[in-house]
Amino acid sequence: MEARYFEDLGAGARFESETFEVPGNAIIEFAEKFDPQKFHLHPATAERSIFKGLVASGWHTAAITMRLFVRTLNLAEGAIGLGVDELRWPAAVRPNDVLRVSIEVLETRDSKSKPGCGIVRIRNVTTNQRGEVVQSMFAHALVPRRDRRP
Amino acid sequence: MEARYFEDLGAGARFESETFEVPGNAIIEFAEKFDPQKFHLHPATAERSIFKGLVASGWHTAAITMRLFVRTLNLAEGAIGLGVDELRWPAAVRPNDVLRVSIEVLETRDSKSKPGCGIVRIRNVTTNQRGEVVQSMFAHALVPRRDRRP
Repeated sequence: MEARYFEDLGAGARFESETFEVPGNAIIEFAEKFDPQKFHLHPATAERSIFKGLVASGWHTAAITMRLFVRTLNLAEGAIGLGVDELRWPAAVRPNDVLRVSIEVLETRDSKSKPGCGIVRIRNVTTNQRGEVVQSMFAHALVPRRDRRP
Repeated sequence: MEARYFEDLGAGARFESETFEVPGNAIIEFAEKFDPQKFHLHPATAERSIFKGLVASGWHTAAITMRLFVRTLNLAEGAIGLGVDELRWPAAVRPNDVLRVSIEVLETRDSKSKPGCGIVRIRNVTTNQRGEVVQSMFAHALVPRRDRRP
């Protein structure tokens, strides 16, 4: 698939990512580095937590979502995150869940400060193998144009 | 330091984290797993990107912020993220930057659905060694009470 640029993203465009399985050891490894709370670290202790079992850090879910997003859009010069709004984790990610991301381009506009780029407003919804939403968010990103002006 | 519960977090409370240095190889390692874009992966290629050098994924900055948050608040039963709003990355994190997080409790209230917990609204601002803001956000989290009601 040819790499995309800003011009290839029109409002209303939708993309579906590949899937990504989240092993329990990856949940623990991420948590040890970045979110050392017991419901992310120890299966036995997590059984006695509010989650009644090991769950992934929401930031791990967000990072996996980014991986799926990057590989799906395949932007030649990347997407530079400007900000994220309404980031929610309505259901927890558990060991061996299989995630996928639905991406919708909501709006596109020129960048005033970076004429070589455009700005896209995106809705990303991450679901598990049962179709339950594990994460949703709106994001703004700066995306380089094919026809790059200086 | 004794571990904290919801009752220990009052509106207006402020906390300053320890510092965390971000080595270049950690930036690359995170990007290979979660954000494989060239300005996060290859120092030489990153020189020719919009950033003019290697920069950390915003999701890596968010994950490091979570680490500093968890270690600073030291909540006995953890904090369960409900959502994040206005997540922004006004400046990039570069190799060997030293980050710290300022945490402010904006508001606390009872949880209707989980009487054993309260809900805190937090402002987290992550800065580098020059005091530049590299990330800011508002977050809601569910925090267990010391006096846990069933």
